[in-house]
Amino acid sequence: MTRVITVQRDVAAQAKEQAEDFRREMTRRGTLVVNLLSSPGAGKTSLLAATAVHWGDQQRMAVLVGDIATDRDAQRLAPLVPAVQLTTGGACHLDLPLVQRGLEVLPPGDLDFLFIENVGNLVCPSSHDLGEHVRVVVLSTTEGDDKPAKYPKAFRTSRAMVINKIDLLPYVSFSINSASDDALSIQPQMEILSVSALQVTGIDRWCRFLVELRARLPQLCPPR
Amino acid sequence: MTRVITVQRDVAAQAKEQAEDFRREMTRRGTLVVNLLSSPGAGKTSLLAATAVHWGDQQRMAVLVGDIATDRDAQRLAPLVPAVQLTTGGACHLDLPLVQRGLEVLPPGDLDFLFIENVGNLVCPSSHDLGEHVRVVVLSTTEGDDKPAKYPKAFRTSRAMVINKIDLLPYVSFSINSASDDALSIQPQMEILSVSALQVTGIDRWCRFLVELRARLPQLCPPR
Repeated sequence: MTRVITVQRDVAAQAKEQAEDFRREMTRRGTLVVNLLSSPGAGKTSLLAATAVHWGDQQRMAVLVGDIATDRDAQRLAPLVPAVQLTTGGACHLDLPLVQRGLEVLPPGDLDFLFIENVGNLVCPSSHDLGEHVRVVVLSTTEGDDKPAKYPKAFRTSRAMVINKIDLLPYVSFSINSASDDALSIQPQMEILSVSALQVTGIDRWCRFLVELRARLPQLCPPR
Repeated sequence: MTRVITVQRDVAAQAKEQAEDFRREMTRRGTLVVNLLSSPGAGKTSLLAATAVHWGDQQRMAVLVGDIATDRDAQRLAPLVPAVQLTTGGACHLDLPLVQRGLEVLPPGDLDFLFIENVGNLVCPSSHDLGEHVRVVVLSTTEGDDKPAKYPKAFRTSRAMVINKIDLLPYVSFSINSASDDALSIQPQMEILSVSALQVTGIDRWCRFLVELRARLPQLCPPR
């Protein structure tokens, strides 16, 4: 007699389940997980540095920072906040196992906020669920206001758009209204926040937005 | 008697061969093929617009412009130069078959220069040979001077780095020396050109560089 055992694993379904498990576990711990997406050089690290300075000891935050190569971003953040560099060695986005290994390296203790700074790339990271509660896309004014329409998935799956480098608005051709209209047509629930991370403009409102999100942690929907 | 015929196709080797064939054919036609890589919003389209204006009727150029979504870049270029939009529908880079289909849509007639404006992404396009003679990476001053070290493959496989938006240097923290040193340590053959595409600064030198490259078309090495 022959017994046939069919072993089928849906890899995508398995990854989705692992991300759900991670998200549930972080919700249980009271940690809001934020996945930051942007083009290279849009200012994710500067935004997190300004956030750490703004909060000081008020909120317990840590950063997992992804890059293809180098640990420069973790070095920049280390004086301000617990930070672990995740180096992908060529891959164009972070994945959940790398995030989980990074979390193990962080100092023990519960966190209010875990920020995952993804690889600078407006395309690939938008297709990978890292178990975050919310995605935030950072768009800098120097990149042009046409980016929401040209990279729709990063914007459609994000809960907020941070428009950074507003201090450079006098010198570039960028319409906050046009970028906002395009982003809202792609994602009507989008919260839009204008900041200058370097000049510390708008950081109070950004931090308040995060604290309010965390207050309703159990109701937050995962990314689609 | 059983005859066993082994059919093995090395997909990577096949793609490499097709790229070589395309490059050889374009060399035969006297067309220099330039693959432009950069982050979103670094100014590839503006650089090509300035190039088209600078040359006027002196050089026959055309542009294949890649994006995830929208045909905004081709619309911007169309008044200046024959341009075809290649829309990847989600994919993070262009591939050779898409380039070949785009070339068929261009007006007939030999070209001196074919520019392929890749999807805005400093990661994925660097791993795909589109049959170009040279790659050029565009880095804008607003992205930060740490990008060559953080995205090494895009810089290692490029023949030139165009530092764009030098008109914004007074307002951002960017060292041309530091970016150049990093780029040259990754790619010692790198030609470095500083421009402002919008203010038409440095465009003459960039155009001269391209004309000199085309003059030694048969000797140009493919990307590694």
